[in-house]
Amino acid sequence: MEASRPLDALNNARNKRVIVELKNNKQYVGVLRAFDIHVNAVLESAEERVGGEVVRKLGVVFLRGDTIILISPEA
Amino acid sequence: MEASRPLDALNNARNKRVIVELKNNKQYVGVLRAFDIHVNAVLESAEERVGGEVVRKLGVVFLRGDTIILISPEA
Amino acid sequence: MEASRPLDALNNARNKRVIVELKNNKQYVGVLRAFDIHVNAVLESAEERVGGEVVRKLGVVFLRGDTIILISPEA
Amino acid sequence: MEASRPLDALNNARNKRVIVELKNNKQYVGVLRAFDIHVNAVLESAEERVGGEVVRKLGVVFLRGDTIILISPEA
Amino acid sequence: MEASRPLDALNNARNKRVIVELKNNKQYVGVLRAFDIHVNAVLESAEERVGGEVVRKLGVVFLRGDTIILISPEA
Amino acid sequence: MEASRPLDALNNARNKRVIVELKNNKQYVGVLRAFDIHVNAVLESAEERVGGEVVRKLGVVFLRGDTIILISPEA
Amino acid sequence: MEASRPLDALNNARNKRVIVELKNNKQYVGVLRAFDIHVNAVLESAEERVGGEVVRKLGVVFLRGDTIILISPEA
Repeated sequence: MEASRPLDALNNARNKRVIVELKNNKQYVGVLRAFDIHVNAVLESAEERVGGEVVRKLGVVFLRGDTIILISPEA
Repeated sequence: MEASRPLDALNNARNKRVIVELKNNKQYVGVLRAFDIHVNAVLESAEERVGGEVVRKLGVVFLRGDTIILISPEA
Repeated sequence: MEASRPLDALNNARNKRVIVELKNNKQYVGVLRAFDIHVNAVLESAEERVGGEVVRKLGVVFLRGDTIILISPEA
Repeated sequence: MEASRPLDALNNARNKRVIVELKNNKQYVGVLRAFDIHVNAVLESAEERVGGEVVRKLGVVFLRGDTIILISPEA
Repeated sequence: MEASRPLDALNNARNKRVIVELKNNKQYVGVLRAFDIHVNAVLESAEERVGGEVVRKLGVVFLRGDTIILISPEA
Repeated sequence: MEASRPLDALNNARNKRVIVELKNNKQYVGVLRAFDIHVNAVLESAEERVGGEVVRKLGVVFLRGDTIILISPEA
Repeated sequence: MEASRPLDALNNARNKRVIVELKNNKQYVGVLRAFDIHVNAVLESAEERVGGEVVRKLGVVFLRGDTIILISPEA
């Protein structure tokens, strides 16, 4: 990832599994299908995790950008 | 959902039952009738749920976007 | 309500009794006379309710949009 | 008040005594002399009230809009 | 103060001693030298007060507007 | 400092030691090298202080404007 | 760093190891690859630290700007 703009980096993660962490301490793990300049994001095959445990399977989920702390491709 | 923009994904959910979760930990489940770029959303046949229990039936409800954490089509 | 934009839905509620819920957990019930794109809203014949009880009658009240969680026509 | 825009309603309250409630639970009661689209407001002959008790007389006070929850003409 | 816009009212307070109250419950009292549309403000000969007690003398202080609740000329 | 705009006042403090206080109650003291209209600021030779005690030396630090409460030249 | 604009200072830190501190008290340490005017930032070879301890290795991480308090090149 040699992108000079943060959203280019998100673009490199498109269609890969990512971890999204929210301000309410929940994690969503799924395939990043879409995002925009507000960092609104759409995951597919998404799971909600709390404390590392899967607590819910959500399928497709739209996450509003202003609740997101970080997005990281799964190792 | 092959949309490349998050709002396209919401558009795919229009007229379907969705779960909307707010920053105050409440859930609203109903038919997504409208949304805009601020993620303001309108649900019909809406129920408010707390901890998975239906606590109130609201009919039509307008939800202000900045209180929304996530929107997900019901499985 | 077949409106495709959330503010159209609010427009359908104009001059009807609505419930407005704020981030501070208070409810205001009154006739929706005005609103704008920020979701600033004006109610007439307004009552403040906490826990379902009327705690105050306010007559006309201007509610600042960024404090509003939801607006729903009274059933 | 037949205004269709919320700020028209505030305009009807100009030069009248109003109650302004802030996010920090304080009330300011005074004559509404000025406001703008951010809902910044200026009161004259203003009193600060907490729990219904006058705790301070402020004369002229500028209140920043983003701290305001509601404005209501005094009954 | 017959100004119809809130910032005109602040302009009338320029070069006078004002009380500025912040969201963190601290007060700053000093001579209002500058402000802008964001309500960023600069005080000279400023004192920080907590609970009515002077806890610090600051000389010149720039206060970021989004932390300000109110500005009032000292009686 | 006879500037009529708050950012002119910050400009007068450029290349001088300033105290920057953040919403999280931490203080950063250092030489103000840069700032912008969002009040983003860069300090050099910066120290982090909590309760008046130096807890960390940071060298150069970029502080995001929306976390800043006040900036004051050191007496 | 003689830059007069804060983002120039961030540019000087590009491709160097930086500490990024968030509003939730977590630190991320990694190589700064990208940032933008919102202070969204991308780190590579990133570690999450809490209380000075490495608690997680993240590889590439996108950090949303509005959660960031400070960015500082590692000493």
